[in-house]
Amino acid sequence: MRIDIWSDIVCPFCYVGKRNLELALAEFEHRDEVEVVWHSFELDPSATEHPAGSLPEMIAGKYQMPLEQAIASQESIAERAREVGLDFNWRQARYGNTFDAHRVIHYAAEQGLASAAQEAFKKAYFTQGRSVQDHESILDIASEIGLDTAEVEAVLKSDRYAVDVRADEQLAHQLGINGVPFFLIESKWAVNGAQPAEALVQALRQVWEQTHQVEFLNPLAGAAGDAAGNNAAEAGPSCDVNGNCS
Amino acid sequence: MRIDIWSDIVCPFCYVGKRNLELALAEFEHRDEVEVVWHSFELDPSATEHPAGSLPEMIAGKYQMPLEQAIASQESIAERAREVGLDFNWRQARYGNTFDAHRVIHYAAEQGLASAAQEAFKKAYFTQGRSVQDHESILDIASEIGLDTAEVEAVLKSDRYAVDVRADEQLAHQLGINGVPFFLIESKWAVNGAQPAEALVQALRQVWEQTHQVEFLNPLAGAAGDAAGNNAAEAGPSCDVNGNCS
Repeated sequence: MRIDIWSDIVCPFCYVGKRNLELALAEFEHRDEVEVVWHSFELDPSATEHPAGSLPEMIAGKYQMPLEQAIASQESIAERAREVGLDFNWRQARYGNTFDAHRVIHYAAEQGLASAAQEAFKKAYFTQGRSVQDHESILDIASEIGLDTAEVEAVLKSDRYAVDVRADEQLAHQLGINGVPFFLIESKWAVNGAQPAEALVQALRQVWEQTHQVEFLNPLAGAAGDAAGNNAAEAGPSCDVNGNCS
Repeated sequence: MRIDIWSDIVCPFCYVGKRNLELALAEFEHRDEVEVVWHSFELDPSATEHPAGSLPEMIAGKYQMPLEQAIASQESIAERAREVGLDFNWRQARYGNTFDAHRVIHYAAEQGLASAAQEAFKKAYFTQGRSVQDHESILDIASEIGLDTAEVEAVLKSDRYAVDVRADEQLAHQLGINGVPFFLIESKWAVNGAQPAEALVQALRQVWEQTHQVEFLNPLAGAAGDAAGNNAAEAGPSCDVNGNCS
């Protein structure tokens, strides 16, 4: 079972959603058959450098809201993060552009380290007050999860994986995704936003049941036939294992 | 979109079902994206040689029914075949074992000729009164659809593709298929028996719609939420494209 996730590093609910998914997978009986595929999504592609002030100051300026309101909002988000065991040090957060970090995560994915990279970058931004934009900082974070420093340096100095980041974002656009985290299960069933672990595990079970059970179609029977249970759909004429044709 | 079909050559409703599917595909707007995969199913694996008498005589003997009843049954089946333009010459039908023909169809599938082979063998048995068991006859039928005679001879003289026929039948058993034709769309939606072309085209459209639309899950909302429309499922907290987190 495949789960595609769109998320950004500087998106607190993406970190909460990641943790909720981990909690859900711990409960899910078929977790060994789950494959997670991460997709890039930039909340703020236009961000070019670290803002001078704190995160609430940046937000207050960007959305023209009172500083107190921006602070209250960050405190509220931090409280929700705390509920799933995450420490959101919003006072230290170094807001910035995440494009290069996403490129490095795509490189990490090729090494089988996408989830580790997602965790490391989110923790760096969210908890550790580290830049996820400056190349020196990205190199440190990447090396901590075991990525080859020379390779990551080569990625950062080039355009490598830019096309992958853009393809992810184009796909998000095509799917009508305008908020993250966004979870797509088996290319079909969507969970929008950081829903609680119990909702995620129910969603996983619901999809598992739907994809592991043959559903009999009897389209001409109409809605009444469906309501009576799809698996009772009337068969057409057939020949059985004993050679009886009727 | 993939359609897996289990069928046997000596199964009249499998020929009717094949024709119904062709009629359905002619109507179906996404027919160019349909791939058909044929699977072997033997109605009578124990058949060892052509029975001495006619098909109704064989049936009357096998099922201990009056000959008149067996004839009436064949006439009824022929009438249903006629309705979709097929000519079931049951008086000439040469009932027999189909294992080797199924092996040859698997070889044909490797050459991209599975559907042609299905048609040729069914027509041979059903309409032309030809054996689909005797190797000489199988070779003729295979060469008529362009298969290499030496290769088909080598298949017939060996055990090649026996494992494929048995794997198909084992899969049918696992899926609980005990009558053919059996159509499985996208490994999930089943059409059981030779349903009319209009039912098949509706089934194809139904599956197409279900597989080409993202469905939003909100499992904790329960049945009431679903009844209100899955696509209205409540989102969890998220950060939007403008960086707003709520």
